This record gives sequence, C-alpha cells and structure tokens, in this order.
Amino acid sequence: MKVKINNQIENYQSIWMDKEKNICAIDQRKLPFSFEIFKAKSINETCFAIKDMVVRGAPLIGVTAAYGLLQNAYSFKGTTIIDFKEHQITAGTLLSKTRPTAVDLFNTIEQILKKIDTSLSIKENINLLELEVRKIVQTTIDECLLIGKIGNEIIPEKCKIMTICNAGALATVDYGTALAPIRTAFEKGKDITVYVNETRPRLQGGRLTAWELYNEEIEHYIIADNVAGYLIQQGKVDLVITGADRIALNGDTANKIGTYILSVLCKEHKVPFYIAAPNSTFDRRTKSAKEIIIEERDGMEVRTVLAVGSENDKNPKRKYIHNIGSKNLNPAFDLTPAENITGFITPKGIVHPPFEF
Amino acid sequence: MKVKINNQIENYQSIWMDKEKNICAIDQRKLPFSFEIFKAKSINETCFAIKDMVVRGAPLIGVTAAYGLLQNAYSFKGTTIIDFKEHQITAGTLLSKTRPTAVDLFNTIEQILKKIDTSLSIKENINLLELEVRKIVQTTIDECLLIGKIGNEIIPEKCKIMTICNAGALATVDYGTALAPIRTAFEKGKDITVYVNETRPRLQGGRLTAWELYNEEIEHYIIADNVAGYLIQQGKVDLVITGADRIALNGDTANKIGTYILSVLCKEHKVPFYIAAPNSTFDRRTKSAKEIIIEERDGMEVRTVLAVGSENDKNPKRKYIHNIGSKNLNPAFDLTPAENITGFITPKGIVHPPFEF
Repeated sequence: MKVKINNQIENYQSIWMDKEKNICAIDQRKLPFSFEIFKAKSINETCFAIKDMVVRGAPLIGVTAAYGLLQNAYSFKGTTIIDFKEHQITAGTLLSKTRPTAVDLFNTIEQILKKIDTSLSIKENINLLELEVRKIVQTTIDECLLIGKIGNEIIPEKCKIMTICNAGALATVDYGTALAPIRTAFEKGKDITVYVNETRPRLQGGRLTAWELYNEEIEHYIIADNVAGYLIQQGKVDLVITGADRIALNGDTANKIGTYILSVLCKEHKVPFYIAAPNSTFDRRTKSAKEIIIEERDGMEVRTVLAVGSENDKNPKRKYIHNIGSKNLNPAFDLTPAENITGFITPKGIVHPPFEF
Repeated sequence: MKVKINNQIENYQSIWMDKEKNICAIDQRKLPFSFEIFKAKSINETCFAIKDMVVRGAPLIGVTAAYGLLQNAYSFKGTTIIDFKEHQITAGTLLSKTRPTAVDLFNTIEQILKKIDTSLSIKENINLLELEVRKIVQTTIDECLLIGKIGNEIIPEKCKIMTICNAGALATVDYGTALAPIRTAFEKGKDITVYVNETRPRLQGGRLTAWELYNEEIEHYIIADNVAGYLIQQGKVDLVITGADRIALNGDTANKIGTYILSVLCKEHKVPFYIAAPNSTFDRRTKSAKEIIIEERDGMEVRTVLAVGSENDKNPKRKYIHNIGSKNLNPAFDLTPAENITGFITPKGIVHPPFEF
C-alpha cells in the first residue's frame, strides 16, 4: 500500500518478519496520527498485538498467527520432535484465545499445526513451516488482488460506494478485501467516491480506511455512522461493500458492529450489499449465525476515544467523552443474515450460499 | 430535573431569565464534564447560544427564542410603537436564521410577533409579551408532563427502551419529550432499562441523555450508534422512543441524524417506534419530508470530539480523531417517513397522521 511519509510515497505491507525474527507490523492503534512499526519479539507479544489491536482485520489476524507460530518455532530450545510439537500446540492455544470472532485465526492455526510431521526432524519441520507461512502470506496477497479484479466487474464507471470499518490493506497484508475492488476500479480510471463510516467505537473507518484512501488519492467522505441511513435513503449510495470476520456455511456473516444496519438499509432501498472476503474467512464448521460467538469488548472503548490526537500529538491519551458513571454495552461484531447479502466477492468469483467444502 | 452537584441533588430547569434580564441556560456544550450556566445578555448572544448549541432540542430552541424576544423588548430604547414592532421583527429575523430544521423556533417567533398590537403602548405590549412568554414556558412544561403520562400507558411493567440524541429535560424546559414517558414509568415503579445511542457526532446521547438518566438513577447503557441494529435484531429492545425537530402534516418527521436508521430497524423487526413531541413541533405549513430543509453542519464536528474531557478537565479542547485531510458530510438531521412511525406521543394523546390544524 502507498504510505505518504514526509511528502514521500513509500510502499508498505501491513506485516513482515525482519532478519532478527521479529514480527513487524504497522501499529494500527496509532494511525493516522503517528506511523509506527510495532515489533513483537515473542509469542506473548504477538498475542498482545492481536488482543490490543496493533493488528486487526480477519485476514491479517490469520497472517499474524502464522508468523507467530513461525517465530515460536525459531525460539524452540528443546531437542525432540515431540517437544517441538507440544511447543507449537501451546503457542497455537495461546493465539486462539486472543480474539473469538475472526475465523481466519482458527483456520490458519489449524492449517499450520496439522503440517507438523513427527517423522521429520525439527529442522525439516521448520523448513516446511517457513514454506507454509510464505505460502499463507502470498496467498493472502494474491487473493486480495483477485478480489479486486473480480469485484471491479460489479462497479460501474461512476460509482458511489459505502463501506464500514477497515477492510483495506491494513486488514490484510496488502490491497484489502472490501477496498480491493475500489482500488482496482480507481486504477482503471473509474469515477469513484467512497463514503467511509467512521466506525465507532474504535474508528477504524475514520482512522484507517480514510488514511488508506487519502494515501491513494481516492475521493472519500468520512461520515458519522448515523449518516448512512440518510445517504442510502436519498439515493446517494450505489453499492455497499464490507469485509467479514466469519462467514457461515449458510452465508450468515459476522463483521464489524454496524454492518448489519447497512445490510438492512440496503434491503429497504434495494441497494446491492456485498461482502468481500478471502478463502480463510469462510468457516467450514459453522452452519449459521447462531453458532458464532460475538466478542464483547471493554466499555472503555465506548466511553473514550482511544486514538484521540492532533497532528502534533504523538502520544494520544484516553479521553472520556460520555457521562461518567454510565454503563456500556460494547459488542465488537454483529451478524448479517445471508438473505441480506447480494453476493460474496471472493477469489473464486462472486459466490452465493450455501457454501460447501 | 434532578442535578447531582457535589453529592447534593438540586432541581433545575434548562432555561430561565434572571432579575437582570439575562437569559440563563445550562451550557449543554460543557455537560457532563462541567455544569455551567451560560448567560445571554443580548439578542446576539441569544442567537449565538442557539447556533453554537449552548441550548439545543427543538422545544428548548423555541423557548429560547421566546425569552430572546422578551429580552430584546426590554432593551428597546426608542419611543414609538412602530419602531418597537420593527425592533422585535428584526430580532425575530435574527433568531430565525440561527438553525433551519427545528420548527418550534419558527412557530414560537411567529406566535410572539403576531401578538404585537400597535394600538397599545410599548409598556402594554411588553406586559402582554411577558404573559405570552410565561405561557409558552409553562405550556412547554405542562405538555412534557402530559407526554409523560400518556406515553407511560404504552410502556409495560418491564421494558427495554432505546432512544437517540437527547429528548430530555435539557431539550425542553423540564421533564423532556422522549424521556418523559421513561421518567413517568420509572416513577411508577416499572422496571425500565434504557439503551442510549451515543449520537455521533455531538454525542448528545452519551453526554446529555446519559447524564439525565444517571441523575434520576434510571438503569441505562450507552452504546455506539452502530450497536442499535444488533440489539434490535437480538430482541433486546421492546420499544424505541425519540423526539422530533419537525413533524410534517403527513407525519414525516425530521429528527437527529440516525433516527431514520432506528425506524427502519424497528420496521424490519416489528418493534414499536414512537415519536414524542409537544404541539410546537408540528409544522402546519409543511406537507411532507420533501419540504424540510436539513441543516448541514461543519465537518469539524465529525473530525473531532467536541466535548472531550476527563473528570478533571474543565476546558475540553477539540481533538482530531480521524485522518487529517479527509473530507466530511455532516447532516444534522434525517427524515423518517410517516409509515415507519407507530404513533406520535403528544399532549393530546397518541395520534396518527394526517394532521389537521
């Protein structure tokens, strides 16, 4: 993705491993006020990075877990393959407890752990793991590019698109899911305007999606989440595209809180509502929304604005914005029924449920 | 309304005129972090108080205009009744340009100006005006009490109610519109829980409604506006009640941005959606939503959190919370079609359109 730093454009991916085996990630808690690289040096620091949302977005959480298991393998001090396997399974368990909703996390951990081959040496297993992680990272990038190409087909020459949260390069490794078709359409010269829901409480729309679109110079407007209904009602929105955190076999989809509202508004006004997602976000074990666990996060996220800061404020502080003493509910995701979703933009094409694996 | 100050409960109305003819109002820009009384000493300061949202809420804007015209009359330095009339009309014009959507403002200005009787002396006109303003203030209070009594009838013994923005004592003179039935039901001992949409961008829900409910010790939860869909979908909301800024003859209603979303969600899930409003919010000149002007406010309200502050922060500063350089749309209201509204809780009972006057 393009990143404007000191009036220069630099190219970044959201995550990588450096020569010292640190997992390096753009710190998404600090954006857009400060561009900082977070370095996780151990499995505990990697778990913290997921939990505290240094990294977020379902595909990126999966990739972070992959890098985490690789880093954990490098740190193995034992001598037997059985101990190595145990060491990796322990790390997988730790990673799987960080956040409950995004299925990419569980899919990736499972994919990696089942490759452990106790008939091979530790060294050979680490070699295989390196290949596997490289494949996971490259697949994530390739799938996003494909989502962009396929999603571009449904975008007319002039199009006003609404999105919520950040399903961009920052939520993946590069390019994004919901933002991929937008990037492709823009690159093809289409006249694109994006309405960005700010996405309270953590403002991933206003902070991250707007930052990406700004860097790419794609026309966009940040709106309070309350404005979506008015714009859709007034015929100002041609298309809504969002990402996903978990897609059940029947097509029910968990995504950032507020997504369900957009789907109902689109249904009411016959505006196409699409979910864009890579293969890792499809959950082959979950039949419908009823089985999906919705993460309830700390009410402090609602009572405060986390990333408050000015252009000169390198150390944003938590600030109270509500009545002190009131309680909060803070579900991080909601559930959109399959019937509200026009189609799923995936690397395999635009698909419809039921899904079979 | 009850106000907790230094562990004492004091009783306040949202606005009054002091002995020096200053218009005194609880400064709603500062709540809940600081309880301050704003004093408007001239028509220009009164206009500022409306424009800058020291006072807000359709009925209170109307009452403020009434006090403003009384204060303006006291300040008249001329000698002829014709000049007095001109002096008052000029003030009415200034007041009418402060904010475009709430009809109570225009209804009240018209009601007062048409009482000017050029066959009487200035002194007699001021006496009449004093009576008229006193009547307007008392009517606003009485109507809110009636809305409470009538609205209470539709609230079951145990009820989870959702609201948006602040349609409480702070939006009127006392008691409120949407909050009036909630107060009455609570006083009658009903088991009430209120879900308070924080109401971005200006957070009137999280700042003002939550503050009122907290002072009254009514159980409540502040939620990010994005959460409303999830709660309604999950069957957690029995009833939605909101205020209104302008109700057209066919029942179409302008209210705080985000209200329309709640109405669509209620329609989708067959949850009753009520508007509570005094007589002054009904617009006898507007046939439908198509004729209602929606105020577009400064995007700075979206890019920042206005009332950011901590318990110790008496002077909250504007803080940027989004990508700097992105543009905003910031419509302050939206339009809910009559068909989405279960009923209007008014001092005359629960009524349904079309309305005739």
